[in-house]
Amino acid sequence: MFFASDNSGPVHPDIMAALADANTGHAWAYGDDALMDEVRTRLRDIFEAPEAAVYLVATGTAANALALATLCQPYETVFCSPVAHIHEDECNAPEFFTGGAKLTLVPGGDRMSADALRAAIAAEGTRGVHGPKRGPVSITQATERGGVYALDDLRALTGVAREFGLPVHMDGARMANALVTLGCSPAEMTWKSGIDALSLGGTKNGCMGVEAVILFEPSKAWEFELRRKRGAHLFSKHRYLSAQMAAYLRDDLWLTTARQANSNCARLAEGLRAKGAEFLFKPQANIVFASFPRATHRRLHDAGAQYHLWGSADLDGPDEAEMLACRLVCDWSIPQSEIDRFLALL
Amino acid sequence: MFFASDNSGPVHPDIMAALADANTGHAWAYGDDALMDEVRTRLRDIFEAPEAAVYLVATGTAANALALATLCQPYETVFCSPVAHIHEDECNAPEFFTGGAKLTLVPGGDRMSADALRAAIAAEGTRGVHGPKRGPVSITQATERGGVYALDDLRALTGVAREFGLPVHMDGARMANALVTLGCSPAEMTWKSGIDALSLGGTKNGCMGVEAVILFEPSKAWEFELRRKRGAHLFSKHRYLSAQMAAYLRDDLWLTTARQANSNCARLAEGLRAKGAEFLFKPQANIVFASFPRATHRRLHDAGAQYHLWGSADLDGPDEAEMLACRLVCDWSIPQSEIDRFLALL
Amino acid sequence: MFFASDNSGPVHPDIMAALADANTGHAWAYGDDALMDEVRTRLRDIFEAPEAAVYLVATGTAANALALATLCQPYETVFCSPVAHIHEDECNAPEFFTGGAKLTLVPGGDRMSADALRAAIAAEGTRGVHGPKRGPVSITQATERGGVYALDDLRALTGVAREFGLPVHMDGARMANALVTLGCSPAEMTWKSGIDALSLGGTKNGCMGVEAVILFEPSKAWEFELRRKRGAHLFSKHRYLSAQMAAYLRDDLWLTTARQANSNCARLAEGLRAKGAEFLFKPQANIVFASFPRATHRRLHDAGAQYHLWGSADLDGPDEAEMLACRLVCDWSIPQSEIDRFLALL
Amino acid sequence: MFFASDNSGPVHPDIMAALADANTGHAWAYGDDALMDEVRTRLRDIFEAPEAAVYLVATGTAANALALATLCQPYETVFCSPVAHIHEDECNAPEFFTGGAKLTLVPGGDRMSADALRAAIAAEGTRGVHGPKRGPVSITQATERGGVYALDDLRALTGVAREFGLPVHMDGARMANALVTLGCSPAEMTWKSGIDALSLGGTKNGCMGVEAVILFEPSKAWEFELRRKRGAHLFSKHRYLSAQMAAYLRDDLWLTTARQANSNCARLAEGLRAKGAEFLFKPQANIVFASFPRATHRRLHDAGAQYHLWGSADLDGPDEAEMLACRLVCDWSIPQSEIDRFLALL
Repeated sequence: MFFASDNSGPVHPDIMAALADANTGHAWAYGDDALMDEVRTRLRDIFEAPEAAVYLVATGTAANALALATLCQPYETVFCSPVAHIHEDECNAPEFFTGGAKLTLVPGGDRMSADALRAAIAAEGTRGVHGPKRGPVSITQATERGGVYALDDLRALTGVAREFGLPVHMDGARMANALVTLGCSPAEMTWKSGIDALSLGGTKNGCMGVEAVILFEPSKAWEFELRRKRGAHLFSKHRYLSAQMAAYLRDDLWLTTARQANSNCARLAEGLRAKGAEFLFKPQANIVFASFPRATHRRLHDAGAQYHLWGSADLDGPDEAEMLACRLVCDWSIPQSEIDRFLALL
Repeated sequence: MFFASDNSGPVHPDIMAALADANTGHAWAYGDDALMDEVRTRLRDIFEAPEAAVYLVATGTAANALALATLCQPYETVFCSPVAHIHEDECNAPEFFTGGAKLTLVPGGDRMSADALRAAIAAEGTRGVHGPKRGPVSITQATERGGVYALDDLRALTGVAREFGLPVHMDGARMANALVTLGCSPAEMTWKSGIDALSLGGTKNGCMGVEAVILFEPSKAWEFELRRKRGAHLFSKHRYLSAQMAAYLRDDLWLTTARQANSNCARLAEGLRAKGAEFLFKPQANIVFASFPRATHRRLHDAGAQYHLWGSADLDGPDEAEMLACRLVCDWSIPQSEIDRFLALL
Repeated sequence: MFFASDNSGPVHPDIMAALADANTGHAWAYGDDALMDEVRTRLRDIFEAPEAAVYLVATGTAANALALATLCQPYETVFCSPVAHIHEDECNAPEFFTGGAKLTLVPGGDRMSADALRAAIAAEGTRGVHGPKRGPVSITQATERGGVYALDDLRALTGVAREFGLPVHMDGARMANALVTLGCSPAEMTWKSGIDALSLGGTKNGCMGVEAVILFEPSKAWEFELRRKRGAHLFSKHRYLSAQMAAYLRDDLWLTTARQANSNCARLAEGLRAKGAEFLFKPQANIVFASFPRATHRRLHDAGAQYHLWGSADLDGPDEAEMLACRLVCDWSIPQSEIDRFLALL
Repeated sequence: MFFASDNSGPVHPDIMAALADANTGHAWAYGDDALMDEVRTRLRDIFEAPEAAVYLVATGTAANALALATLCQPYETVFCSPVAHIHEDECNAPEFFTGGAKLTLVPGGDRMSADALRAAIAAEGTRGVHGPKRGPVSITQATERGGVYALDDLRALTGVAREFGLPVHMDGARMANALVTLGCSPAEMTWKSGIDALSLGGTKNGCMGVEAVILFEPSKAWEFELRRKRGAHLFSKHRYLSAQMAAYLRDDLWLTTARQANSNCARLAEGLRAKGAEFLFKPQANIVFASFPRATHRRLHDAGAQYHLWGSADLDGPDEAEMLACRLVCDWSIPQSEIDRFLALL
């Protein structure tokens, strides 16, 4: 009963098999492997973007920080949600890779609204040389709270960015989950909706450790390559990144695992709802934030369930009936039986 | 006949097997996996350093740049050889991770001499607040030119560093090869010889992509962890780094593969010598720099041999007899038959 | 009628005279001038801090950014008000000089409350290696909105910092104005209230361009010197910084000019109040934020008054009666007659 | 008898007078003062460059580091002489402001040769994404060793840069001295010879603390302004920088003081030559490096002469006849009588 994170599950067997397949003889290093050609072609096909620049790195933070550094000058500020991974969980990596750019937090919760974004951008540009200059907008899809922007929402946000001439980055660590939810095409969710650069997650969705960065507008491709190398994120034995990503995309495995994760989450959410749990956010992808009594948490912990309480919730309080919030994440690998066992304990 | 680099060979089967073994169920992310406990304990044992701080990253450049950033202030300068990987092949990663420190190149060739190092350090400290301040010394073992420092050489260098109160980093991307050459213990080659921080290579010697950083003096361990995260080098599915390193150390696999690489190289060097090739450097580990006539290079290339010409050598010159230098690297995986085929073509 | 800023007035005649006096013969460069000895001694006396390290730079942003860089690691975050000069008006200088630290904005207005600060610090430390680590607290005194923290307020804030083991920086660009308001000693307002590092302003209060940085705990003095040089803020002809600061402190000129500025402001505020203007903040030093009808603004502008409208206020609106906010700053040099002329136009 | 540096003399009376003249009433801050308009127009006239972007900062290191940061990407390397001020005497400021670019030292002495520069640039571009990329060339004129590049030399160097498509920066901290030596026009020495960005010194040549940065190709002017602000080098009371520079240029004062400095130096050099001193470099501007016996140095020191011994020379050695090198710098303000007194003591 492991619901602590989707970065803790096993690697999908197809991806393990692809790694084994790739493990023969010598291959040119640093991305000049034949598998990377397959990956590049495949991603351009999937995204209907024949000119896009495509790169692989091993961590989501690297994908985000390098993409932002390529879009952003050090005297600019990045607009994002207060709960964005780039703000909360990357230990200043965006600031580091951009050379000291700022992050401007757009008031609101999980999802930015176009109005709040417009207000934040407008406010940031009024101090001439004194304040930071307006830089890229970064949008997480699916969000850190398990939400999914509708295409109209995305277009409203990128439209605001466009009004101010700003590029837009999508943190797609869980983009596959969002695609499954919306049922749209990858192109529709990205460049057709105004996204300029995408971090496309693999690690949380069945890979061992690989993320793609896609620059739909490839004029800064070479700069990205240099920043990746300078950031120590260019792999010598790159074929093992390529092999993961190739297998991940083959036969739409990425959508299959995401569908499984979302469906696991839906089953869990339904069960929680049935048992009277309260939701902090509407679960639309593979994460649920729910509240239920301390006594139930205790029972689950005692039975070995692993997940994180949320905010200031403390398992060791006196009041058994107090509602405590928690975050429950489903990856593709969780057996239904585990979910059902969890629900049975509620 | 692939002699272009030791970063292009396959992953050792034992390491592939370990990855498969690790691939069951959920594991805590970010280094809290049980395999990392094994790695930590094993490295402390091997290095006779029970207090050492031990971390894993995926690239050698990350290991070097993060170790140096932990030892170095941004207003300092790192002393290294003009052919050091940190200077020539990391696209300013040390400058980036240190926040803008300088690299002072100690005149000489592949290996630094203690006298040249002392002179370089002495010269760097005479301009008060105006010049950069003296920072760490970085030594590559085995070197980028296939040489190996004797223990006395290492001690002479670290002794000079000690005179000036400077910490010492070892770039051990090929440390296992050097250990096999010297036949000494890991402790003797490192902290017993005055090394404070070590980048211990795995990738070039049979792993998929893993390097250890060992801080023998662990007071900056937490700082290292934060710099690793900030540099986007902390893996979520860390168990797959741990599994590689654990298998690499188990039953001294790392020394076995290094022994094989060195012995491959010795066979190659012996053959080259017999055929009249000239050596640019004395081959002591798994790399040979040799010169032989253009006609021979052509014959080898036509037969499919893959390796890099060196310096300004150009395969397409008119003079068939002209001696052209090249770099030949042997990893553990090259079959003897390939070496013999190569030699037969000479 | 110039109320646009206190960085636009002339240099005080005593300071001009000191510059002329200093202009004889040769003097050692880079802070080794005799006048700097006088400044150091005088500031240590004034602040009752015989061990303090004392440095001069030419801009307030340099003083703040260098002081913070000395107190803060690049993986930390600085706690400050959302209207702090370091956040709003330094174009990412703190991020640049710290090597990419973050600024955490403590919710609230002009002045931080101890409770809000405690909550912000507590919230920032809960994500282990993932979030930024807690770094220094920066307090502006007098504030950017013309307020002054009482000593008890300061002690409450520094007490919170102390609870978490964090150092405290004071941006004292207008510290002299605050001292005049509170009538306390410089030591009481700073280290006796828990301040570790101070940016002490000269430029806005009668100097040509000089600010002191005082490190009450001098263990990082040498680091500060190196950061100042590396930031290109070490003056060769340093005696002209020293001469300004020496004259500024001599016979308490700094308090005299601040008293004049505050008293100018009080006269202005009183007049505004009498004419029915509304105040956005309580004016406690030398700045007033006031609202009055558009028609009045127009009259003032037509008569040549120079000051900035505030926020989104627009002089060219249709409604003559609409209340428009503005910021009015008084320096020491404004003649009473100008204030009275301004008030007469209201 | 002060020959230690040209950064230690007094401010020229005309410049002091201009500061006094500027000291009336209020003026717009941050470079919007009327005097800056005069400076901009005047520099464009002097340099025959009506489109050039013109900015002022207070230190030479700021001028160099900001100009280079505007020309250079963080993954590039700057080509300069091993004795360049940017390498030896700026405590890593160029590395800091560029975000971690490297400096490649072009072998040779004081002055770079075109061949050595071409070889250095050629060698730096052969490692694809692994090595740093080629960045700007920086040339000091007059040099740190008192030499002056002939126009042909400059054109040869900038021609090499042009071959590789690299921009060229001139560190003109002592450009006026070089102009006087060559007798050419400012335009001829700069953009007509292929210079893209110039640091034009004022401080060493009679100002209090002001340097101009001129971007002959102004497309990055706004970026420069933002980098200047972010580097804390934008002065609020900017008129006092403008006033210095305006007076410095008025009636060619800058050339008058440079002529005086050079002529002082020529008188000194002639006297040294007559007394049998040996020169380390040919003195062409306002600096002499000369060797003469220890006994003479002692006599001069006892008489109060102030200057720096050079390299490892030590005043306190046993051998009175040993030749010790020293650096002697003349500024405009040294009276002939002092030079003659110095020479009489030889």
